[in-house]
Amino acid sequence: MSALEPTLIRPGDNPDITKERRAATVPVNALAAFIHGGADIVKRRKEIYDAVEAEPALRNNLRLEFLPREQRHEEQARRAVAMTDHATDIIDGSDMFGEGIYYQSLIMGRDLHALSLHYSMVLPAIQNQSDEEQMEEWLELIITRSIVATYAQTELGHGTNLSKLETTATYDPETEEFILHSPTITATKWWPGALGKSSNYAIVMAQLYVKGKHYGPHPFFVQLRHRDTHLPLPGITIGDIGPKLGINGSDNGFLRFNQFRIPRKAMFARNARVEKDGTYVPPKHAKLGFGAMVFVRSIMIKDQATQLAAAVTIATRYAAIRRQGEIVPNGQEVQILDYQTQQYRIFPNIAKTLVFLFAAYEIKDLYLKVTSQLQEGNVSLLPQLHGLSSGLKSIVSWDTAQGIEQCRLACGGHGYSQASGFPDIYSYAVGGCTYEGENIVMLLQVARGLVKLVPGIRSGNPDLTEITAYLGAKPSSKSNFTCAANTSPTDLVAYFEHAAREQLFAAYDFWKANESRYPTSEEAWNKAGIELSKASRLHVKAYLVRNYFNYVSRNTDSKIQGVLLALGKLYALDQLSGAAGAFLRGGFFNDGQISTARHGIYLLLEELRPNAVAIVDSFDISDRELSSVLGRRDGNVYENLLKWAMQSPLNESDISTAYTKHLKPMMVEARSKL
Amino acid sequence: MSALEPTLIRPGDNPDITKERRAATVPVNALAAFIHGGADIVKRRKEIYDAVEAEPALRNNLRLEFLPREQRHEEQARRAVAMTDHATDIIDGSDMFGEGIYYQSLIMGRDLHALSLHYSMVLPAIQNQSDEEQMEEWLELIITRSIVATYAQTELGHGTNLSKLETTATYDPETEEFILHSPTITATKWWPGALGKSSNYAIVMAQLYVKGKHYGPHPFFVQLRHRDTHLPLPGITIGDIGPKLGINGSDNGFLRFNQFRIPRKAMFARNARVEKDGTYVPPKHAKLGFGAMVFVRSIMIKDQATQLAAAVTIATRYAAIRRQGEIVPNGQEVQILDYQTQQYRIFPNIAKTLVFLFAAYEIKDLYLKVTSQLQEGNVSLLPQLHGLSSGLKSIVSWDTAQGIEQCRLACGGHGYSQASGFPDIYSYAVGGCTYEGENIVMLLQVARGLVKLVPGIRSGNPDLTEITAYLGAKPSSKSNFTCAANTSPTDLVAYFEHAAREQLFAAYDFWKANESRYPTSEEAWNKAGIELSKASRLHVKAYLVRNYFNYVSRNTDSKIQGVLLALGKLYALDQLSGAAGAFLRGGFFNDGQISTARHGIYLLLEELRPNAVAIVDSFDISDRELSSVLGRRDGNVYENLLKWAMQSPLNESDISTAYTKHLKPMMVEARSKL
Repeated sequence: MSALEPTLIRPGDNPDITKERRAATVPVNALAAFIHGGADIVKRRKEIYDAVEAEPALRNNLRLEFLPREQRHEEQARRAVAMTDHATDIIDGSDMFGEGIYYQSLIMGRDLHALSLHYSMVLPAIQNQSDEEQMEEWLELIITRSIVATYAQTELGHGTNLSKLETTATYDPETEEFILHSPTITATKWWPGALGKSSNYAIVMAQLYVKGKHYGPHPFFVQLRHRDTHLPLPGITIGDIGPKLGINGSDNGFLRFNQFRIPRKAMFARNARVEKDGTYVPPKHAKLGFGAMVFVRSIMIKDQATQLAAAVTIATRYAAIRRQGEIVPNGQEVQILDYQTQQYRIFPNIAKTLVFLFAAYEIKDLYLKVTSQLQEGNVSLLPQLHGLSSGLKSIVSWDTAQGIEQCRLACGGHGYSQASGFPDIYSYAVGGCTYEGENIVMLLQVARGLVKLVPGIRSGNPDLTEITAYLGAKPSSKSNFTCAANTSPTDLVAYFEHAAREQLFAAYDFWKANESRYPTSEEAWNKAGIELSKASRLHVKAYLVRNYFNYVSRNTDSKIQGVLLALGKLYALDQLSGAAGAFLRGGFFNDGQISTARHGIYLLLEELRPNAVAIVDSFDISDRELSSVLGRRDGNVYENLLKWAMQSPLNESDISTAYTKHLKPMMVEARSKL
Repeated sequence: MSALEPTLIRPGDNPDITKERRAATVPVNALAAFIHGGADIVKRRKEIYDAVEAEPALRNNLRLEFLPREQRHEEQARRAVAMTDHATDIIDGSDMFGEGIYYQSLIMGRDLHALSLHYSMVLPAIQNQSDEEQMEEWLELIITRSIVATYAQTELGHGTNLSKLETTATYDPETEEFILHSPTITATKWWPGALGKSSNYAIVMAQLYVKGKHYGPHPFFVQLRHRDTHLPLPGITIGDIGPKLGINGSDNGFLRFNQFRIPRKAMFARNARVEKDGTYVPPKHAKLGFGAMVFVRSIMIKDQATQLAAAVTIATRYAAIRRQGEIVPNGQEVQILDYQTQQYRIFPNIAKTLVFLFAAYEIKDLYLKVTSQLQEGNVSLLPQLHGLSSGLKSIVSWDTAQGIEQCRLACGGHGYSQASGFPDIYSYAVGGCTYEGENIVMLLQVARGLVKLVPGIRSGNPDLTEITAYLGAKPSSKSNFTCAANTSPTDLVAYFEHAAREQLFAAYDFWKANESRYPTSEEAWNKAGIELSKASRLHVKAYLVRNYFNYVSRNTDSKIQGVLLALGKLYALDQLSGAAGAFLRGGFFNDGQISTARHGIYLLLEELRPNAVAIVDSFDISDRELSSVLGRRDGNVYENLLKWAMQSPLNESDISTAYTKHLKPMMVEARSKL
């Protein structure tokens, strides 16, 4: 079911969770509509959910957590094929950000699969980077799934620094072919999803050499395996890179080339190209492949928010039905949701979920705007989008990972069981801290952009965008904060902007002062890295606070207003108190105000407590998608933990091979000597 | 090999890691001797390592990360039997804290096994809680491994709150038996290690009822499975609780009783007992089972420090051989260990490793002292040990988990692979945040003890111990901090003691002020939970800083003095800057001093950089124990990542079943329509 009223409360539910739902004051349907962007979207989610449930091929009868990796991989391939078989009947495929992500998460769970990169990377690359002849030949193969393709860029020794890739593509004008080669061990392509076993084609990034001259990395469309036998072609070594922290349904792979020849037309030719005689024709604009990367990061923000939404849903519902300990001695054990320390673990993460989700909406809009401007040759918003998506990706993925682990720990021992869903949620989400640009590298890139603005601001000639406008504002020396109840969104935003501005200036000055301490400006930059990344963090957090309150200001339903405001304040005060040093700088806050902010958090926890279950209900995550015994809508956790455990493969027999082969002989021998 | 000089540098090693070792200024052997408590202990480690390597039954030919859970479970049983077969030949079994842990980690890796609780919980319980007749009957069974036993306390619905366990043991005087029963689903025993499949006996905690009267939880020694067939006895339902985040070699289990009868003598009788006619004889002292719990927590601190040591060893060595990006444009790619941001991820965790390890040594000594005092009936140090072990357990397990993840993330994409070792290290270590007392519950218990001291301190009649003595000191209004170079250990300790004291008083006052806001004192306490847990955290951190500098003050080798001091300062300043609000309170620090402290961190990172590899080398973790391709002593990471991946079961065939069953039919059908 789509978890909304009136079906949320049903006979047979755990009485504690029903009590929570009856006592809530916020209307779940209205809140859900606001959170998902409209009642029509919530309705579409229900239609998609029902259609998926009704289709037998989309039933997930095997529970992934009980499968060895090889079977998990196979099951995910089955699901991926079934999912794409039925996609056009069920969803609007043009709405990847909305319906696409939702549909996929219902079927695939927290994992990638054989066709993940086929659609998310290869398809857009062909659409944007191939010439007409290539498009004609390749696009249909991809869309019809006549081949399975992936995107092979990173190498064993090379991640984010594209310019140092080692795989070479050397043009041979005699045969009009490129020779792909992996000259070293570190040149081995490593990590691409679905490369190991599933794909028979790949886009390969390689350093182009023509007539001894090096032209930098270029993309090539390369057949890897025989179309009929699926065996790797001669000159190609390919395989799975082995088990990972998570995402183990995916066969991330490695790939080595030994003087492997491909036709000249295999090089993507819309931008740059090599002519028959070896003449290199450079691209008209640099960075034309840029949009796709930003698109993936934008999708990531929503995906991360969705994972955090699942985590807080599980932790909140479980905390409502779990009774443990007494607040008053010898009383009934209390719902653990009543402990202030428990609320503090969960509620700020509920707030983060919405803060991140609304930022994801904003960045999607910005992405669409930039895309349409790019088609008119207007690149003015690109740097802004690039900076924002990099910065958000870092902050959101890290805070999401931290939040998921807090939610898991808040569930005590049962959080450690795979029945909770948390191990999969965490291992899937935390990957986002590393892929698509390592977080710290991203923050330093954002800082590069920010420090460029400082001289202009200081000299009175600021060159600012909507997102950096606040840096040009006149600083105030004292905050006007008195208490959480009285503070306004405008004030809170101003505090963050102040702290971000001051940290940026301080980091800038520290970097510049370093120039007299270190031999090069670059080393001075490196030795200011921590201060600079702090500046980026505060810049993004100021954006998040501002964007949240902007977004919720559109709400017109007074019944949900209080909850939205309280969550925003909770996010802001929690972040403020966690980075107190940045707000105390120069006496902007004094320590009494920090203490008051902290006490404000406690009051907000108390205020949110009665609606906690209703708020997570409004995230509208079905039991199917949640895939957590602890987070079930009905709250009937314990009997279902037992049922879940009975499916453990170790329970197929009363006697384990560990006993028969090892423990039994040990005991029999010992007893014979007694 | 035991990773010490002169064998650390060998032909064929990665040149970057050799360069690091040659350039280091700190002598690895001397540092290792200090860290491990003496050159003789380092020598013993080498002897144990060599003996384990020489014994064919202790060879670990199967790599656990490639095995499905059921095979992993079986392999761990094999190893556990082999380990205990050979233990008496190789180690001094009375030195569990030293040789025992080390020997086990060499063989078992980061996992529990069939005999973990048999030795760590059941054996001490029998030694401490059985009467002479029981001891006579049970002890030999355990020591000879004629049975396999575990400790069944927690239930599906009940964790840390022992008093609410639901399993009942009702005495039937007619047959002189107890009837064990699980009256509800939530009464199901849940989580005990090795309960699911391996154990045929268990110590079961159950609520004792005699003649309708309830006497609270008591331990019983219960046969669960038939000694010959290993089948569960009639009236007993037993099984595995399913896969977990980690520790999947262990068959943590569930257990239900249906009116299951056991003889009267099955109840542990040294302390309390039930006589034939049903007369209940109460224990002379409460809390006599107390020591074992504290012992496990003390062992845990060392175990956690060991996990963090492994994580920083991997991250440091990998950062020395990984080259990525340029500091100077178009230069050679740099060792990522040269980035300040990378140092900041790793070095504070190197410092934490030693801070935690030296605290583990201290708590072991305290434990031994308390144990010998207890035998003379002296319980005076018990509360101090209890408070310290609970508090340390919380701080150390959380900071260790965080540190491991930072180290993993610092390794980029390869950190996510199980080849790195991190997935196992993290999932194993982070369990420590929950088991043996959930961290937040523990911190609140510590706070209970601390607040009791406040009225006495304020009225001038303090009742303080060695660990709390600082609370009675006269507060100073301003810190004397000028810079990292000039600050002394004594000063740093004083800052932490000041901050801890002020936070305790503030939390106490907040709690008391709450009493006028909330109906009960208990609710007032609950609503001060966050402030109180902050007080406990600072109390423990003050202890950690003080203990570290005390411990290193024993060092007499000037060549290692600088590194030990720098690591202590780095720990202190990093913690100080992370909790700046607590030090800024009341103007004790001003924000300029906080900023100076932060700059001090940067200088310490720079100072430690040349010795980073040497320091982690001195932890003396062999490649066998480390079990990480990224952290290999020789630094030859890339070729070994490839070799490791080749062992992935998915690489056994060129063609996967995912392809044959799902992707091939999809592509063939699509192509037929082209």
